[in-house]
Amino acid sequence: MKIRVGIYGYGNLGRGIESAIRQNPDMELVAVFTRRDPENLKIGTEGVEVKHVSDAESFTDRIDVMILCGGSATDLPEQTPELAKMFTVIDSFDTHARIPEHFDNVDNAAKEGKNVAIISAGWDPGMFSLNRLYASAVLPEGEDYTFWGKGVSQGHSDAIRRIEGVLDAKQYTIPVEAALDAVRSGSAPKLSTREKHTRECFVVTAEDADKARIEKEIKEMPNYFADYDTTVHFISMEELKRDHSGIPHGGFVIRTGKTGINKENNHVIEYSLKLDSNPEFTASVIVAFARAAYRMKAKGEVGCKTVFDIPPALLSMKSPEELRAHLL
Amino acid sequence: MKIRVGIYGYGNLGRGIESAIRQNPDMELVAVFTRRDPENLKIGTEGVEVKHVSDAESFTDRIDVMILCGGSATDLPEQTPELAKMFTVIDSFDTHARIPEHFDNVDNAAKEGKNVAIISAGWDPGMFSLNRLYASAVLPEGEDYTFWGKGVSQGHSDAIRRIEGVLDAKQYTIPVEAALDAVRSGSAPKLSTREKHTRECFVVTAEDADKARIEKEIKEMPNYFADYDTTVHFISMEELKRDHSGIPHGGFVIRTGKTGINKENNHVIEYSLKLDSNPEFTASVIVAFARAAYRMKAKGEVGCKTVFDIPPALLSMKSPEELRAHLL
Repeated sequence: MKIRVGIYGYGNLGRGIESAIRQNPDMELVAVFTRRDPENLKIGTEGVEVKHVSDAESFTDRIDVMILCGGSATDLPEQTPELAKMFTVIDSFDTHARIPEHFDNVDNAAKEGKNVAIISAGWDPGMFSLNRLYASAVLPEGEDYTFWGKGVSQGHSDAIRRIEGVLDAKQYTIPVEAALDAVRSGSAPKLSTREKHTRECFVVTAEDADKARIEKEIKEMPNYFADYDTTVHFISMEELKRDHSGIPHGGFVIRTGKTGINKENNHVIEYSLKLDSNPEFTASVIVAFARAAYRMKAKGEVGCKTVFDIPPALLSMKSPEELRAHLL
Repeated sequence: MKIRVGIYGYGNLGRGIESAIRQNPDMELVAVFTRRDPENLKIGTEGVEVKHVSDAESFTDRIDVMILCGGSATDLPEQTPELAKMFTVIDSFDTHARIPEHFDNVDNAAKEGKNVAIISAGWDPGMFSLNRLYASAVLPEGEDYTFWGKGVSQGHSDAIRRIEGVLDAKQYTIPVEAALDAVRSGSAPKLSTREKHTRECFVVTAEDADKARIEKEIKEMPNYFADYDTTVHFISMEELKRDHSGIPHGGFVIRTGKTGINKENNHVIEYSLKLDSNPEFTASVIVAFARAAYRMKAKGEVGCKTVFDIPPALLSMKSPEELRAHLL
């Protein structure tokens, strides 16, 4: 019997989940839930029901894992606890500072519903977090570094779009090669924000816009750009659509550390991702962890989990015997 | 209370465990067991008992985890099952083809002794295996690549030393940059043995040795060198000791895969290690997993486990709350 999945929210991430499920033959998509009018939502898979979110509770017997695809700012803090009372759920909550609070809320709800809930699955938080944990456990005396990019930051692109005279924009976060090399050398450098990443902006303006003023507003924007070396390129709408329509991302988690009686030996552990599509890769991670959620629930576990709590074998379609024989 | 550790076998790996324990303040080394005469074994830590292996069973109440540091060829297949009847144990058994058989033997013994046993902890098998598993679970449609090096292969160095006229030798396994680049491009190349790695040998011969014959014997040695492009350098004993006394190693685990409704997006997941000391890094991994073994035993678990079965949080000195707040 296949693992029956529901998708709750059908934006970029929801569509990514839909296509990831097709790559996992032990899973099937049962229904997509939307806040929009279901009549007007066209999804990519035939034979799958499209329902209003208010109908979700009638699906408790027909869905094994509900995958929440809303945003971390306002959707997930409400939706994940609410749905964890009814379903085994998984989300990709990514507001790092609020994870402890979200964990507690979801844990209480999941225990009330006797369900398993996994929060913050994706790549950061998610795969990057796992690599930070493994590396720091293996090399207790060392330094951690996380770099992001090259990739599109949605938040920074949105910030540019709010400037008067801007019609559209894409912002790329780019790790500084020299900083990466310094880290890999094992010299454990202290790096400022400016030394780690640069920001590159592609901006389409209204015809009569004051480009000098826009460039200045971008470069001086506090929190978003002021602490970085920022480059601004003004391009046409046609160029933006042609050259900057993708949603690539990625990054690096590096830990350097020392071992030996006299701390004489250096080691470098590096994990990196180069992703053509941020939402599709995030979705692929979520779907693997959804399998683990299903299996933990089947074993009688209850409550909120993160990627740190999940035995890796539970993510795989392969049996423990196959894993030991072929991947170990 | 600290986790009380025993070391069973005191070669390079055993010494690595000894120094790793010093970096993990929740652990203490209780005793080192040796097949040699304990009187003549000098270890690096004061106040730690040195005992003959035959005395191990009198330590069952004083050791929480016994770390087995013997070789995979003949030691561990006997020692791990034997000691798993008495102790929670961990080894770094690395004969990939014999893992299923070793697992079964250790599992039976650990269940008989109501202990937890972890086998094949280290970096390959170990950290590399974990990365192969995570990456293949996240990108079910893709290709896996493992490269080793640059590093010293003990087995290949030993093979050269057995040639007549050779006094000493060190062999480095080196991944081919062009192959790494082809893999990272996402083109999913089929790579032959020769295309993935080269072998570089530093050889000290007797004064009257026939170097041409030795070079030919090395390059044509079946299994070890015949399938590789091999370079042989003849150097003096002094140069060997000065420039090649380290035991560096490392490597790369790369998975490339596609996502999207039309498989239009490529992703690259890469994990790499650059290690100054192969045995010390292996020891550091083992010590982190020894913590997990102790915790699983304390929870009442029983039987043989591999790195695939262990929730990552169990490896860390940090509490689940700290991990969620700071590493997730």
